Amino acid sequence: MSQLWSKGLPLDAAIHRFTVGDDPVTDRALLAHDCVGSAAHARTLHAAGLLGGEDLAALLVTLKHLHAEARAGRLSISREQEDAHTALEQALTARVGAAGKRIHLGRSRNDQVMVALRLWMRGAVVEVARNLVVLAAALEARAQRHADHALPGYTHLRRAMPSTYGQWLAGHAAGLIEELEAAQGVLARLDRSPAGAAAGFGVPLPLDRALTARLLGFSAVQVSPVDVINSRGRHEVALTGWLASIAGVLEKLHWDLALYSTEEFGFVRLPDAFTTGSSIMPQKRNPDVVELARARCRELRGYARLTEELASGLPSNYHRDLQLLKSPVVTAVTKALELIDVTRRVVEALEFDLERARAAVTPELFATAAAYARAEAGEPFRDAYQAVAAELAAGTFEPPALARAAALGAPGRLGLAELERSISREAHEWAELEAELEAVERTVFVTGDR
Amino acid sequence: MSQLWSKGLPLDAAIHRFTVGDDPVTDRALLAHDCVGSAAHARTLHAAGLLGGEDLAALLVTLKHLHAEARAGRLSISREQEDAHTALEQALTARVGAAGKRIHLGRSRNDQVMVALRLWMRGAVVEVARNLVVLAAALEARAQRHADHALPGYTHLRRAMPSTYGQWLAGHAAGLIEELEAAQGVLARLDRSPAGAAAGFGVPLPLDRALTARLLGFSAVQVSPVDVINSRGRHEVALTGWLASIAGVLEKLHWDLALYSTEEFGFVRLPDAFTTGSSIMPQKRNPDVVELARARCRELRGYARLTEELASGLPSNYHRDLQLLKSPVVTAVTKALELIDVTRRVVEALEFDLERARAAVTPELFATAAAYARAEAGEPFRDAYQAVAAELAAGTFEPPALARAAALGAPGRLGLAELERSISREAHEWAELEAELEAVERTVFVTGDR
Amino acid sequence: MSQLWSKGLPLDAAIHRFTVGDDPVTDRALLAHDCVGSAAHARTLHAAGLLGGEDLAALLVTLKHLHAEARAGRLSISREQEDAHTALEQALTARVGAAGKRIHLGRSRNDQVMVALRLWMRGAVVEVARNLVVLAAALEARAQRHADHALPGYTHLRRAMPSTYGQWLAGHAAGLIEELEAAQGVLARLDRSPAGAAAGFGVPLPLDRALTARLLGFSAVQVSPVDVINSRGRHEVALTGWLASIAGVLEKLHWDLALYSTEEFGFVRLPDAFTTGSSIMPQKRNPDVVELARARCRELRGYARLTEELASGLPSNYHRDLQLLKSPVVTAVTKALELIDVTRRVVEALEFDLERARAAVTPELFATAAAYARAEAGEPFRDAYQAVAAELAAGTFEPPALARAAALGAPGRLGLAELERSISREAHEWAELEAELEAVERTVFVTGDR
Amino acid sequence: MSQLWSKGLPLDAAIHRFTVGDDPVTDRALLAHDCVGSAAHARTLHAAGLLGGEDLAALLVTLKHLHAEARAGRLSISREQEDAHTALEQALTARVGAAGKRIHLGRSRNDQVMVALRLWMRGAVVEVARNLVVLAAALEARAQRHADHALPGYTHLRRAMPSTYGQWLAGHAAGLIEELEAAQGVLARLDRSPAGAAAGFGVPLPLDRALTARLLGFSAVQVSPVDVINSRGRHEVALTGWLASIAGVLEKLHWDLALYSTEEFGFVRLPDAFTTGSSIMPQKRNPDVVELARARCRELRGYARLTEELASGLPSNYHRDLQLLKSPVVTAVTKALELIDVTRRVVEALEFDLERARAAVTPELFATAAAYARAEAGEPFRDAYQAVAAELAAGTFEPPALARAAALGAPGRLGLAELERSISREAHEWAELEAELEAVERTVFVTGDR
Repeated sequence: MSQLWSKGLPLDAAIHRFTVGDDPVTDRALLAHDCVGSAAHARTLHAAGLLGGEDLAALLVTLKHLHAEARAGRLSISREQEDAHTALEQALTARVGAAGKRIHLGRSRNDQVMVALRLWMRGAVVEVARNLVVLAAALEARAQRHADHALPGYTHLRRAMPSTYGQWLAGHAAGLIEELEAAQGVLARLDRSPAGAAAGFGVPLPLDRALTARLLGFSAVQVSPVDVINSRGRHEVALTGWLASIAGVLEKLHWDLALYSTEEFGFVRLPDAFTTGSSIMPQKRNPDVVELARARCRELRGYARLTEELASGLPSNYHRDLQLLKSPVVTAVTKALELIDVTRRVVEALEFDLERARAAVTPELFATAAAYARAEAGEPFRDAYQAVAAELAAGTFEPPALARAAALGAPGRLGLAELERSISREAHEWAELEAELEAVERTVFVTGDR
Repeated sequence: MSQLWSKGLPLDAAIHRFTVGDDPVTDRALLAHDCVGSAAHARTLHAAGLLGGEDLAALLVTLKHLHAEARAGRLSISREQEDAHTALEQALTARVGAAGKRIHLGRSRNDQVMVALRLWMRGAVVEVARNLVVLAAALEARAQRHADHALPGYTHLRRAMPSTYGQWLAGHAAGLIEELEAAQGVLARLDRSPAGAAAGFGVPLPLDRALTARLLGFSAVQVSPVDVINSRGRHEVALTGWLASIAGVLEKLHWDLALYSTEEFGFVRLPDAFTTGSSIMPQKRNPDVVELARARCRELRGYARLTEELASGLPSNYHRDLQLLKSPVVTAVTKALELIDVTRRVVEALEFDLERARAAVTPELFATAAAYARAEAGEPFRDAYQAVAAELAAGTFEPPALARAAALGAPGRLGLAELERSISREAHEWAELEAELEAVERTVFVTGDR
Repeated sequence: MSQLWSKGLPLDAAIHRFTVGDDPVTDRALLAHDCVGSAAHARTLHAAGLLGGEDLAALLVTLKHLHAEARAGRLSISREQEDAHTALEQALTARVGAAGKRIHLGRSRNDQVMVALRLWMRGAVVEVARNLVVLAAALEARAQRHADHALPGYTHLRRAMPSTYGQWLAGHAAGLIEELEAAQGVLARLDRSPAGAAAGFGVPLPLDRALTARLLGFSAVQVSPVDVINSRGRHEVALTGWLASIAGVLEKLHWDLALYSTEEFGFVRLPDAFTTGSSIMPQKRNPDVVELARARCRELRGYARLTEELASGLPSNYHRDLQLLKSPVVTAVTKALELIDVTRRVVEALEFDLERARAAVTPELFATAAAYARAEAGEPFRDAYQAVAAELAAGTFEPPALARAAALGAPGRLGLAELERSISREAHEWAELEAELEAVERTVFVTGDR
Repeated sequence: MSQLWSKGLPLDAAIHRFTVGDDPVTDRALLAHDCVGSAAHARTLHAAGLLGGEDLAALLVTLKHLHAEARAGRLSISREQEDAHTALEQALTARVGAAGKRIHLGRSRNDQVMVALRLWMRGAVVEVARNLVVLAAALEARAQRHADHALPGYTHLRRAMPSTYGQWLAGHAAGLIEELEAAQGVLARLDRSPAGAAAGFGVPLPLDRALTARLLGFSAVQVSPVDVINSRGRHEVALTGWLASIAGVLEKLHWDLALYSTEEFGFVRLPDAFTTGSSIMPQKRNPDVVELARARCRELRGYARLTEELASGLPSNYHRDLQLLKSPVVTAVTKALELIDVTRRVVEALEFDLERARAAVTPELFATAAAYARAEAGEPFRDAYQAVAAELAAGTFEPPALARAAALGAPGRLGLAELERSISREAHEWAELEAELEAVERTVFVTGDR
């Protein structure tokens, strides 16, 4: 009799295989978090007088052990056990006897899933953010070095205005900083404890949900049990939507690289160790890594949509449909982390053809500057614009001497110091958050105050 | 010669119609904001010594006037003018002469669009949030009144646990509070001034972008001009994604209503003034409003996807593709506002069949409570669970006396006071934000300190 | 008492406005088709002895009249009438008295909508296909003329193999031919008569549904009334999915044009009448039409997703949710027709820089041909590949004399004659289908055999 | 030196891992098809005099062997080999020496992928269709048995008209028949041979592409090599779009089952072997299989969107981005097959509560029939409708004697014989297609005429 819900009735084998699905694999990501959640739950039961001190001690020791095994990837889930939660309860019962049978008091698999998933998602946001900081720093470092190296600025894929390598790279770093700030919004959704929702209607026992929340490092309790269950999916959509937004920033970078590394543009070159060849054309060196990274950005958008599809269309409360949400979210986070890492490697390895870029900043790109010079001298801008257009048409246009002053963000005044400060601030904040999460995993298995 | 970019060459008529598209209609939403942005730009030009005091005064007076006309819906855009920005510059030039030709110095249509859109989106977030607060309050008020009226709690669409009308309604209100908090994250993305990005590479003039930002009520400058243009679409996706998340909360409410108002469930009734009939079946009263509200939720998800589709797949910098983003965002906000308003009306009008709901809370829904009672008396929960299952199978099950204590969120301790405080806090914050936005529109046309 | 379903109860005004939605506008596209469907229904009632000969005659004359008015855009729908079907029944009753009250026997608004929509969608497929044929012919004509003009063939956006303008243009025409063939699959779904489904459970009257189907030009009856209603949405998804697939073909063409018309590639040029300028940069000529056409392709994909979103997530049978499906489908077809027309204009106007393209077909693009020449002489290909790679590395590579023979589809043997035959065949088939649809509209109002 | 494209340069390890991705796993689905495609290619080379008879014989024997191993799952792909195509060429070279190095003449990995994928997709369509036929037959068999057992017909989730179990089940079967017919459209896209496209610009060798097509069982050659590569993704979208459309049919069935099996509706019951329990509520039996099948339908829609996302947004010709398309398509087909199988098991196992359903067909469901009876007696329908409405309001309504005649599809005349004929016809057609595909795999390795 292996499942938590089993009362001894037979179950059709094909149907059972279908209902279990990928859980025994996907849930391995949740096992360690289920240990953490179970430890906090046991301590809350104890505080309510519903679990003896010895039982608590036995459970905490064993959970700590199981947690270490799970972290090391040594705890597995059988198809009969179906999911992380049955596997855990059985492991506990096998190791500590009756105390293992006591731990499910005042909770259900539903809130066990919610707690484990939320801890996992909270950790995922922090891990993705930490890697984004590193990527932003890599972009900024290269921007610093090439702040004043000329590059044509394009609009409509047509040469438009004078720009620099630094301005281009800093633009991508700035986009990532926005995503790092937006991560706080995703985290705010996740920073409330679902523990105590049970099947979605709460627990008729005097459990102190605020204590559980505190033990798990949440800022607050998600009070409504109906909302706890209804937020399943909503949070997954917020998380994968954030990954898709990051992908939107990186997609532009990789598209730029695909374009700038063509024979025709030629501003950027990938080292040989980053390119691959053709099975038929001996002369080719292809930027596969950039193309696959660009496709990965679309893939993350696709996973966000798959997640949204799975999360939608249901009335309130728990439906088994929600189980399918786990796999795409775990996959999307894994894929995002790899994308960010590979992008950083590419950014660090890029080679620039500074000469070719400088040559492409042709005189007519200074037409706007010429109109501005006339306007500074008093001519209305619209008239200056028409005058320069006429010069261009007549072939008499001469680019003006360089501007002495520029607005913040323009070449010559890119504002890289501000950018660097933002990156440092983010680096600091996310490191602190990571430390807090680690502290939870260290202290939750140890009785004592927090 | 009507367009800002025109240099007198003929343009194929069919192509021109295609490139202009819906802009003359869609851009009407942006006209007032373009006046505000233009006033701030004029004052920044003046501060940099690039616009004389008299020109500034003339422009501000006229912009204030045009702003009032736009707000009143009396300013229109012709197909020849193409968009809000040409319409505005031409109106200015017509009314104040050469000063009108001076205002485009140091900006481009691209950052004019960015500024107007961002002001519009910022206002849209605040307006949607203000309405969400009202809806949450309506739900909470009804939850208060029916806090203890019994309702079956469902899982898997099967009767599961005792619940109450109040617990159900409060769950939806709690979901909206989460969305109100998440709105701050969307707002944070929008709360930086794009003004000064020009064509996406900044302005070679000593314009004080921080001044423009302050005049427009932004907390900061979005420094990188590359990032300003690259964030077009990213912000629209964040806004419509938020609307889709709100829709995810409301979809569950309307699905519940569709279900609970069937003959079979019968817990809820819509008054006649909220139902419609059939053209063929004389006996029917149909809950069309609830079905259309549910479909509207899917529609908002669809608009979010349309927006994401339009925003994706491009290299850095400006491409005309981005123009198509305006229409779905404006439409989605309008549709969301209507949905929220209609939902509030429905919530206020709902009639409950309290007797029928109470009767549906049948004894076996207390099976968990019975197992808990045994567990409180010392039996391990897993054993208690099996014992109660055996009683149910044998037909000997008796529901226990009601629990004396419950955890926060469970029936008997719903935590509605906390919910009410959250709603009040949100009401206060969003009212303040609205007041700040109104102050910008009042002061930007008036020279003087802010 | 204006609505078909009204029994005199008051309806909340805000709720009524919400439930009516866009129907009075969107349904104008359906009015003419509703006249056709109603004529066929009246004739079927008459054949079953349920409508007198004089009533039938009066109805047909009036319906023919209304049909002409609707086609001319002179029939409107008031907000009180809500939709095309009430508007039509009221117009009939006003003009022919009691006979108008008899026509709703044996049908419901649900199957009236189904019939009108299906007729509309059938016509839309034919109209889109007719325009696609014209575009494919325009591409093929230009491919013929430039069949042998050299153009580099790219893979990974890197120069790869020798190609020609003709091969490039013929590739896009071939994609459109596939879409024209696939249109038959969409049409097959639509080519069954829903008439007689009533509210989704059929009609307890001896109506001859095969007769109605024949009068409306359908090949068969969609027998199951449950399936008729359940197919609402499924067909809309098939239609907009087809438009999205067409957009997938055109997206590549417009991306190619955006790229090939850059200063850097320079193989293609848009005439001035097809470009626009910048409001700030006097020197710019921008390919806005190509960018907007590319964005329109993404927009059509977005509309397909919006449609799919609206069509999904519901149990069997009619739900009012389905009403929202009408607007995006009508919009998507309109947008697709405009895209196809604009694309044809662009294709016809393109100017090619044949010299520049020829120069870009550099010697190393013949590396594969060199390896082939060695292989034809007996060397295993993999060894020949390595040998040529070594020559390239050593700088000793010489392109071979041109190949004497090529496989079908390769430069020198593009197979344009086959392509032309396919286009002619499609042109013929779709013209025939259009004629058949026109015949239905001519004959359905005239009593007599078909 | 393991990769087909390798010329001996080192490749960054992390980058290589990223570019290889899931291919070594995903490509196992393609290995057997690559053997088939390679055999046809070898025979075409031989026919062109580019491969000797002994080499051909050696290759065919070995390919037949490898094909059997791949079918048995005994052929694997190492990370160094990257994909199916390198693995195959290396296995060939290892077993037959120089002949293995000759086989890549006149093709590239790109068209090898195209050929293998197309063969795989063609087979997938046939396999899915074969299973759909079985499911449709299961639905039809149950519909036959319960053709006249009363069930309320719902609109707006409100009881509306008299229906029967048979009408309900036949409706779902009819939806599947439409999908089986639509499968022909997907197959038509796939039924052209891409072989000979090489890198996307054809082969400068006199290869007979029509011969290759014939050997592979394709009806025609996909002539344009540009179109061959451009159709990558387009076909995947068509296939997964078709799976999503099937899912749209099944979603309604599973939603119906979720609803009809509630305590409140109670028309349908799942046997115990198809339900699971709760970890906290001893009394629960949950219809998890139906919920997961419903979610699986949304999941297939999600995979279609993921596929569309990956397929879109690129210029013409090959980009490495396309590699990511393989995994979601293979996954979606696997998931669809499982869904269809599980649905059939559920359909066969369903238990009906005929009494309860009959009791739910309450008198007012005959209100339309009553109005029809009046109309048959001469009263205009609209007046009859109002008269019955008045009787219902007054409580004087009496249901009429049952109708003697009904239109095709209505209860009493469901048209199940037509449905059965359709199923038989589909069963026959798809069995024939499957036989043809099997014949290709039998004959392609054997020299001789076909």
